Amino acid sequence: MKLTILRNELNEAIQHVSKAVASRTTIPILSGIKLEATNTGLTLTASDTDISIQSFIPMETPDKTIGTVEKTGSVVLPAKFFVEIVKKLPHEEVHLEVGDRFQTMITSGATEIQLVGLDPEEFPVLPTVQEDQVVSIPGDLLKDMIRQTVFAVTTNESTPILTGVLWNLQEGVYKFVATDRHRLASRTAAIEMYDVRFSNIVISGKTLNELAKIVPDQNVMVDIVVADNQVLFKLGNVLFYSRMLDGTYPDTSKIIPQTFKTELILNTKQLSDAIDRAYLLSREEKTNIVRLMTTEDGGIEISSSSSELGKVTEQLAVTELRGEPLKIAFNSKYMLDVLKVLDSEELFIGFTGAMSPIIIKPRDNENSLHLILPYRTTN
Amino acid sequence: MKLTILRNELNEAIQHVSKAVASRTTIPILSGIKLEATNTGLTLTASDTDISIQSFIPMETPDKTIGTVEKTGSVVLPAKFFVEIVKKLPHEEVHLEVGDRFQTMITSGATEIQLVGLDPEEFPVLPTVQEDQVVSIPGDLLKDMIRQTVFAVTTNESTPILTGVLWNLQEGVYKFVATDRHRLASRTAAIEMYDVRFSNIVISGKTLNELAKIVPDQNVMVDIVVADNQVLFKLGNVLFYSRMLDGTYPDTSKIIPQTFKTELILNTKQLSDAIDRAYLLSREEKTNIVRLMTTEDGGIEISSSSSELGKVTEQLAVTELRGEPLKIAFNSKYMLDVLKVLDSEELFIGFTGAMSPIIIKPRDNENSLHLILPYRTTN
Repeated sequence: MKLTILRNELNEAIQHVSKAVASRTTIPILSGIKLEATNTGLTLTASDTDISIQSFIPMETPDKTIGTVEKTGSVVLPAKFFVEIVKKLPHEEVHLEVGDRFQTMITSGATEIQLVGLDPEEFPVLPTVQEDQVVSIPGDLLKDMIRQTVFAVTTNESTPILTGVLWNLQEGVYKFVATDRHRLASRTAAIEMYDVRFSNIVISGKTLNELAKIVPDQNVMVDIVVADNQVLFKLGNVLFYSRMLDGTYPDTSKIIPQTFKTELILNTKQLSDAIDRAYLLSREEKTNIVRLMTTEDGGIEISSSSSELGKVTEQLAVTELRGEPLKIAFNSKYMLDVLKVLDSEELFIGFTGAMSPIIIKPRDNENSLHLILPYRTTN
Repeated sequence: MKLTILRNELNEAIQHVSKAVASRTTIPILSGIKLEATNTGLTLTASDTDISIQSFIPMETPDKTIGTVEKTGSVVLPAKFFVEIVKKLPHEEVHLEVGDRFQTMITSGATEIQLVGLDPEEFPVLPTVQEDQVVSIPGDLLKDMIRQTVFAVTTNESTPILTGVLWNLQEGVYKFVATDRHRLASRTAAIEMYDVRFSNIVISGKTLNELAKIVPDQNVMVDIVVADNQVLFKLGNVLFYSRMLDGTYPDTSKIIPQTFKTELILNTKQLSDAIDRAYLLSREEKTNIVRLMTTEDGGIEISSSSSELGKVTEQLAVTELRGEPLKIAFNSKYMLDVLKVLDSEELFIGFTGAMSPIIIKPRDNENSLHLILPYRTTN
């Protein structure tokens, strides 16, 4: 392999694939990035076996020439050092040449680097994904759907299936669900593709966070290809492969109450600020318990207390309060997580009693639904 | 104590003093902030016994009214929660009222906070500092002098005196010195105050880092008062007290070579970039060893190697090279620390052989002098 390439384009591709490099691995080849030069371009690949990312740099684009391949071939280079050094190379052009036993010479300006490369034959082969089930979704929407659900996955590895987000596509409606058994987040979006459908696809929350980072901010379409136990995300020249989590996701539809005894409509930011202050105190108690009660004047009171520090009490006016008086306690951290991701100016909150799930939705649409279980507390 | 005060001014004073709150202490009162209201203003004090910071908020300034004291008095409030909550209060005005047993009520808008306060009589009394030895120094210069020396203090508590920076003021010249026995940083500045002199004042590096944070960016004068075992920094309404470190600082003047066998003048940024790349590789070996050698064409070569990864070689042109050929090895991290703080475009580097101290100075002035001991290496 022998080629010359622009540093910035090489660096950009490295940044993309580096997110899939195995950070703690006993298999040396997985801590590397595979480079493969063909006559049309350079392909970089990294994989930790759960996720694999591939980025292709074409040698020619309509705008400019990015590089020239003098000799095709491939090599695996140690990722950690390679990622850092390419950023800092002095010249805008980088020359790469692989010699005997994968010894690789990198030159740029007056800098010469000899790197011990590894045999690309040892690098894992990417899964073959049949492209018969393809969904297109705007990148912005995909990022929103991830952001509005992924925080609710569990970090507890004893229920591996709940460390992932459940994806369904039925009747042209895309739905994400995440739950850690104490709370649930769900988000739907109509994408109007009636010929594709899938259900019970569960993708790790960690993987989705990595995916969200490489979806570009410009609103491009992302193609999603679902195969046997793999999902492939196609973002222009970047391919992102993820394994699906094994197992059956629990049916959560039955735990969501459909009617409420007390209903609130109120300003998201005002509620968020009030709970944030109460949370500060409850955090010191390490319980995060905050209480919400309706008041005689038709508003609500948010409060928390700490035996050591004292008490915070917040009076809050609401837009609407319907139904029975209520007194309920919940984990303020869970509520703040929800309020942070809901982009709606006003919220609907529905209660069916002090011991029953709390439902939070944007006031103006039905796309998002969040559930929090209350604390069973006696005082 | 009973008063009303603007939230932003209260918050600013809290941010200043909070840097002195003891973070891990078995003495509860030290984890608090003392508030004392007089007829003219509110004074906040925090102390971890090594450093104490006091900030005074006047009730009236030429521009505006900041508050009103209805009843003088004092209380100690738990710092961690108080620092966080004041930032987040909903209204621009905050009302504070101390009741029975130092129970304190904080109200702002529709937020009410009851805090368990502590007895201010238990709070440590600040040292009395005689103001007969006062030096004035521009804040910018003080921050520069700290930044250019403090990185060289040792973190090793077995030689406590070397965890501090040595300050001397003689013949109108202010001098800071720091060393960890492997390197030395020194900075001088003429402040032309011939009537004040002091020597062997050693102030903890950690303390100086905190001090640098609260010296404002606008170029104001800082008054420095030196007393028995305390130094007081006066920054407008903020007073910063620091204990001096006990012990005698070693005499470092004799280890600085005055003549050199090899002298280099070169561009700071080019050298810094080249060493940074070599450092990236040497870091993987955990030694940070980088080699520098003069080349036949009158330049230098910077290199590092790692048995696992490979080798980095950098060719560097220099402005001037005088004296004997040289081959030397040193800790690249120490060199980068120096290059980061020297603001000069070109540097002088003097060598007296592969086993002797390396001297680094700005090319255009004698204000800074840095010394690094080389590695004794055979290859």
